Order: sequence, then structure tokens, then C-alpha cells
Amino acid sequence: MNARERINVMPEFNMLIVDCDVLVRENGRYTVRREYDIAIRGNRIVALAPTGQLDPAHSELCIHADNCLAIPGLINTHTHAAMVLFRGLAEDVPIEVWFNEYIWPLESNEEPEDIYWGTLLAIAEMIQSGVTTFADHYFFCDEIARAVEESGVRAHIGWAVFGHEGEEKLRQTAEFAARWQGGAGGRITTWMAPHSPYLCDESFLRKTAAYAKALGVGIHIHCSETPEQVALSLKQYGVTPPAMLARAGVFEVPTLLAHGIALTPEDIALVRNHDVAIAQCPKTYLKLAMGTAPVRAFLEAGITVGIGTDGAVSSNTLDVLEQMRLLALDQKQAAKDSTVMPLQTVLDITFRGSAAALRAPDLGEIAVGKLADIVLLRQDSARLFPTHDPLANLVYAAQASDVDTVICDGQLLMRHGRLLTIDLPRVRAEVSARLERLSQRAAERRIATYPTM
Amino acid sequence: MNARERINVMPEFNMLIVDCDVLVRENGRYTVRREYDIAIRGNRIVALAPTGQLDPAHSELCIHADNCLAIPGLINTHTHAAMVLFRGLAEDVPIEVWFNEYIWPLESNEEPEDIYWGTLLAIAEMIQSGVTTFADHYFFCDEIARAVEESGVRAHIGWAVFGHEGEEKLRQTAEFAARWQGGAGGRITTWMAPHSPYLCDESFLRKTAAYAKALGVGIHIHCSETPEQVALSLKQYGVTPPAMLARAGVFEVPTLLAHGIALTPEDIALVRNHDVAIAQCPKTYLKLAMGTAPVRAFLEAGITVGIGTDGAVSSNTLDVLEQMRLLALDQKQAAKDSTVMPLQTVLDITFRGSAAALRAPDLGEIAVGKLADIVLLRQDSARLFPTHDPLANLVYAAQASDVDTVICDGQLLMRHGRLLTIDLPRVRAEVSARLERLSQRAAERRIATYPTM
Repeated sequence: MNARERINVMPEFNMLIVDCDVLVRENGRYTVRREYDIAIRGNRIVALAPTGQLDPAHSELCIHADNCLAIPGLINTHTHAAMVLFRGLAEDVPIEVWFNEYIWPLESNEEPEDIYWGTLLAIAEMIQSGVTTFADHYFFCDEIARAVEESGVRAHIGWAVFGHEGEEKLRQTAEFAARWQGGAGGRITTWMAPHSPYLCDESFLRKTAAYAKALGVGIHIHCSETPEQVALSLKQYGVTPPAMLARAGVFEVPTLLAHGIALTPEDIALVRNHDVAIAQCPKTYLKLAMGTAPVRAFLEAGITVGIGTDGAVSSNTLDVLEQMRLLALDQKQAAKDSTVMPLQTVLDITFRGSAAALRAPDLGEIAVGKLADIVLLRQDSARLFPTHDPLANLVYAAQASDVDTVICDGQLLMRHGRLLTIDLPRVRAEVSARLERLSQRAAERRIATYPTM
Repeated sequence: MNARERINVMPEFNMLIVDCDVLVRENGRYTVRREYDIAIRGNRIVALAPTGQLDPAHSELCIHADNCLAIPGLINTHTHAAMVLFRGLAEDVPIEVWFNEYIWPLESNEEPEDIYWGTLLAIAEMIQSGVTTFADHYFFCDEIARAVEESGVRAHIGWAVFGHEGEEKLRQTAEFAARWQGGAGGRITTWMAPHSPYLCDESFLRKTAAYAKALGVGIHIHCSETPEQVALSLKQYGVTPPAMLARAGVFEVPTLLAHGIALTPEDIALVRNHDVAIAQCPKTYLKLAMGTAPVRAFLEAGITVGIGTDGAVSSNTLDVLEQMRLLALDQKQAAKDSTVMPLQTVLDITFRGSAAALRAPDLGEIAVGKLADIVLLRQDSARLFPTHDPLANLVYAAQASDVDTVICDGQLLMRHGRLLTIDLPRVRAEVSARLERLSQRAAERRIATYPTM
């Protein structure tokens, strides 16, 4: 075959991942297939077969993955990515101090360019941790979108806004949503992102819902993080936060509630009747002693639940595998029952649930026709042997740093631990140059105030 | 200088670790010194100085450690190392099922050689996770000692024994303690290891205490793991498990209690008046929904607390960093107070506390005169940047797989992630060959029975 002939032969696949174990979902249950190949064309998975059946010669690129477990790219359904800039700056403090004396004074220092570099640092961490999609709820979102576009990951971005910032600011966040919807070759989805019922009043939320309806986008919002917030809502509105959101029309568009720790049984009955999903970030709840969300009640009611990391100032990492494990551990402990939140349920929340929470059914599964977001986890650590139960190893023994290779939208973002789309030393240098200014704290210069009873 | 002259010059140091950050304890508080060198002679740390002050030419071996954080070798104060053989075999089950239908039937399959290979696998995992010392409570302890001797780690080994095995068996466990005390060049310390007050009666424990006194060794025992065990003790003995242990004379020798989740305020008052330390393994407690130990009450009473991993069938890993993090998270959540178990306390339990729990004051600290057990953690992951608070990064963001280099007793056990004393592929092959036999379960063939009320 001469050079001209080679050029004329169109390869059947753009990428073939060869000889890995693969986490798949069959008849509603997760299982691991041994010695399988995964074929990718464009940004889709087009074949899945026992090793030997697909011809590597028919692929542009061949990824040898023996001794790796392929899992769907992890999905982070709730984060404030650029908060990695402040990692470690607010330890061992109560939640109201955390907001009023740390986070919101610190965030008053942020300028758009900080968010670009902070988001790139966060994306680098997420890729290193096997996260290919994140739902970001933060500020200066054009900078976030630029970082997403350049780094090759997938993101659901909402521009966080407080009621006190006013209608003109709300309109600007809607303009962002319109501007970037479907951006980065379809990798960006936008949402409206009012901060919370306690910092956005009912009228502001009604206007937000109107924008969301007009744009055909969803709403991503914090809700019922603590019993105190519920008490405050009852005092201010006469109803719980979800009931106020429903009254304001928020639940008339696809809604993603972050946390919902203090949802009541009546709230759960309300939520289940609308298109509302809930993101769970248990490391934050444990670290800030916020209590345990009634996740089993959510699931029993048929509500979609996904996993998030929250920001790195509460969770310290953007590690979805760790949050998955902590969800199971915290739920078992709170229920005083080690049989709750079994492996199948934990995996279902992490993969199918998180994809559904972002209304992205083409994510979260390695199957023909799904988007090609795939992570290869090295299996050679002593910690992952023996493999009596590969699902138990994945949930309770795998670590973010087992991630060897990351593929998003059919493109390689990391191979053998080397980031291919982000110049991490450059990002670290840019972030370092900003840290002194960013870490100033002046309580009178804060972007919002956490209300207490 | 010619060859003869070089030979005649005795190097001042055997190893010099150059240009690392170092976790040190100064005036009772942990802090990180930047750009420091650590000099080792024999098995001791002999100098600690800013980089540039110690001459690498005076050292036999120079370890370049820029971009690493040096921490004391981690100490695992309670484990059943060879249970890694069964990792993943007993998921999502209640504690009595875990014992009676899984662990004790499975353990009836074990033969001495299995314990040798299982312990080597566990040691490989511990070295990869930065653990240089472990307190093992298991069977066929000559095999454990052999694995420890060959692999270069440090271990405190007690031969687990049940009351129903009788006095002759107890005598044999005492013989083991005598035979291996101070073994492996001083790296092995032995203990008596009766299983628990619920499976060793008072008379058996009195005889155990007599052996311990005669041998000058301590006693390592499970105690008050659940409220049900306390109720059972009250019914059987009229007192709580610690009171029964005190009555049997156990507390007349140095004692290490595993777990103590259900210790009462009276138990704590009793324990504080004796030479008794408590090992905490929170991942097991969370996973088996066993509740949260009153660790703050232990500390307020002045009781020494250390960190352990328990066996890998409950904790899935032998990862002390993870247990440290979970201790803080579980304690904060249980106390409904995010200010409890602050970073300084968590680190104090992990390093100074764990060393004290094993009565090994020369461990757990990087300081001149201490034993040279040192772990270098890579700091180049995006997850560990910025370093506003290196202690927060260590407690809440570091992972076992950040471990780059492990030194124990002045000897290199791992360098750049490569195990130097264990042939892991050989160990995996030997373990694999045993798995089918080891994973048989016949309930009637179990080594003990977990009592229920």
C-alpha cells in the first residue's frame, strides 16, 4: 500500500481503546466487562466489543489500556470551580463565619482574569481526577467559558447572581446564557443561576424564571442548606424555600437544586412533581457539620440525585470519586444501617443520576451512541487487588490519582497522567502572581451577607 | 583526592534528603518549614537544617526532594493486615452478618503461608500509602514477622486469640511474643492480643494479663465496638467491657483498645487512670454504621488516641491519610460543629498520638534524635495548589497515591513510586493462586461466632 492509498482509506474509528476492563450498565445494574475494546468515531462511542473483534488497523489512534478500568467521565453536578484560588483559606469555622468573614470578603477581590486562571487550575485538577463535565455556579462566566473552550472539557455554566445586584445584573446573566448556549462545539450548556432563596427574593426569582423560560434553559440554585435557612424562609415567606421557588415559577423550568439537606417530607412531595434534580456534595456537609441530606427519601420519591464537589474552600478538592464514597459512608452512618446506599445505588447516583441531573442523557455511560467521555483508571496499585468485587474497589478504594487517561468529546485531554490541553506550570505561575491580592480579607468589602435568624 | 583517600573518609551521613518542605512540631503546634534538608545516620535523624547548610558531599546517598513535603512515616495503630486477601468480599452487610457469614467463615480457610503472602500484599499497599509502622492483630504471626523482616517496615504484632481456643493456644501466642520481641533488628515489637471481652472471658483475660506482665509486653484488644456489646457485658459480667478488663488485670499492662465507640463517661474516667490508649478507625465505623466514638471526650480526659485502618474487608484500604480525614469529618458532623477537631488536633492524633498509642515515642516526628521513618509526598498535583495552608492541604486534599518515597529505619523502601523491597507482581501471583480456596464460605466452618443479645 503506498502513501496515496493510505490517505484514501478512511479509518473506521478515530480512537480505539484496547484491552481494558469496562464499567457498563446492563439491565439496570452496573458490572465490569473484562478485556474489552471501545471504539470512538467523532465524539461518540460507536462500538464496544471483546478484545480481538475490532481491528486496530481501522483506527486512527490506538490507546492500549491493559490493566486499566474504563469508567464514564465523571460528572461534577455542583461546583464553584475558580474557588480553588482560595483553597485552605477557611478551615474549621462555622458556616456563617465561612460566608461572612471568608468567602464573600475574599470574592470581592476577584477580577475577570482571575476567574480565567482559577478555572483553568480547577479544570486541571478535575481532569487529573477524571472529571469531564462540571456544572459551575460562579461569576465572570465568559472567562469560565473561555477556559472550558480551550481545555476541552464539558461544562454547564450559570452566572451566579444575588437579588441585591438588581435586574440589570440579572439581565446580563441571561445574556451570558444566550451568548454561550451550545458553545465550544456543543460542550457548553448554560443555566440561569440565582444564588439562593435566602439571597434572592420571590420577585427576583420570578423574573429569573421568566428569563429561563424565554431562553429555554434551566435554573441552578442553592436550596435548603440548613434548618436555619428553612426557618428564615418560613418567617419571611410563610413557606419553605422549595415552596417559595415553586410559587415564583422556578420549577416550571428544569431545576437543579444544590444540597437540599433540610428538605422536609412536604418539600420532597412537591419536588417530585416537578422537573427538579438535587446535587449532593457530602464532603462540604461533613466538613461544615451541616447534617445529612435525606437522599434515600429523594430516591424513594423518584427524584434524580447527582454528585457534586462544591467549591474547594469547603471540600478542599474537586474529587468526585471521594464525594461518591463519602455519600455512601455518611448515609450509612446517619441511617445507623450499613445496608443502605449499596454499591449499585452509589454508582447509579454517580453516573446515571449525575447525567440526568444535568439533563444530559448522552453522558454517564459507556455504551454505543453515547458521547465519548471516558476515563481510564490504573489498576496496578496494591490497594486495588484482589478484585473479588471490582465495584467495591471502585467505590471504596479507587483514588482520583489512579486516573491515567481522560477522553472528553472524543478528544484526549490527559494521557499517562500528562495534561495535553493545559499548561499547568503556566497556570500555577499566573495564579501565584494573583494570590497576595486575592487573599486580602476586609469584612466591610464583601459581595453579600449570610442572613441569620 | 584519590580512591584510597575517598575510602578512608567516613561519610557524616548515610542519607541526606535535600530541599523539601518538612512537617515539624514546634511548641506543640504543627507547621511546615520550607526548603529544608534532613540528614540520617544509621536509623536516626541526626540533623535538620535550611537547604545549603548541610553538605551533600558528606552523605553516602542524596535524595533530591524538591516539590515534596516530608512527613513522619504514617503509623497504623490497628489493623488485620492479611485481610486484604478478602478485600471487597463483604459489602453492604450488617456487622453480625459481616462477622458470622463472611469474616469468620472466610478466615477458617487460612493457612500460614496465606498469611505470609497476604501480609506482604498489605505491606506493599501500606508502603505505597506512606505507612511505615503497623500494629497487627491477626493469626499465624510468625509469617507476619517474616514478611515484616523482609520488607523493611516496622510492626507491632499480636497473635489474635479467642477464649474458646483455650489456654494452650494462649500460651503459644505468648511464646510468639517472647520469640519475636525486638526482632527484625528492633523493628518488631510484640503484644498479647486477646480478641475482645465478648469472645474472651474474664478468667482467660486474667491469664493473658499474667503472660503480658511476665513478658513485659502490652495488650492489644478490641473493646466496646457497639452499644450491644456493652449491654451484653452488663448482662454477663454486671459491668461494662472496660470495667471487666480492669477487673481482669488487663489495664495493669500497657493496653491498646481498638475502637471504644460505646465507651461510657464512667469508662472514660476509668481508662484515663490507667496506661490505656485508643485506636480509631473511622472508615470502618462509617461503613458498618457503628456510630461515632467520643474522641473529644477521650482527648479532654487526656487519653492517647491514634489512627488505624482496621482490616481491608471493612475499610477496603490501609490508607491512614484517608482515616485521618474521615476522623475529622465524622467528628465534625456528629458534633454538629465544624470547629471541632481542627487541623492541629487531627495532625496531633495522626502523628504524636499514634506513636504514643504504640508506646513508641521515637516515631511520629521529624526531629533530631527520632527514628528515621520519613515519607515524601509529591506536591505537584493541581489538587494541592495553592498552599495558603499546607496543613489543610495535607489533611483534606493529600492522597495516599501522592507518596513518592518511603524511608523506614533509615532504609529506602520506595523511591519515585517504585517498591524496593517487595516484588509486587510475584506477591500478586502468589495471592491469585490462593483466592479460589480462600474465598469459600461455609457458615458451619467459622473460627468464632459473634454474640448477639
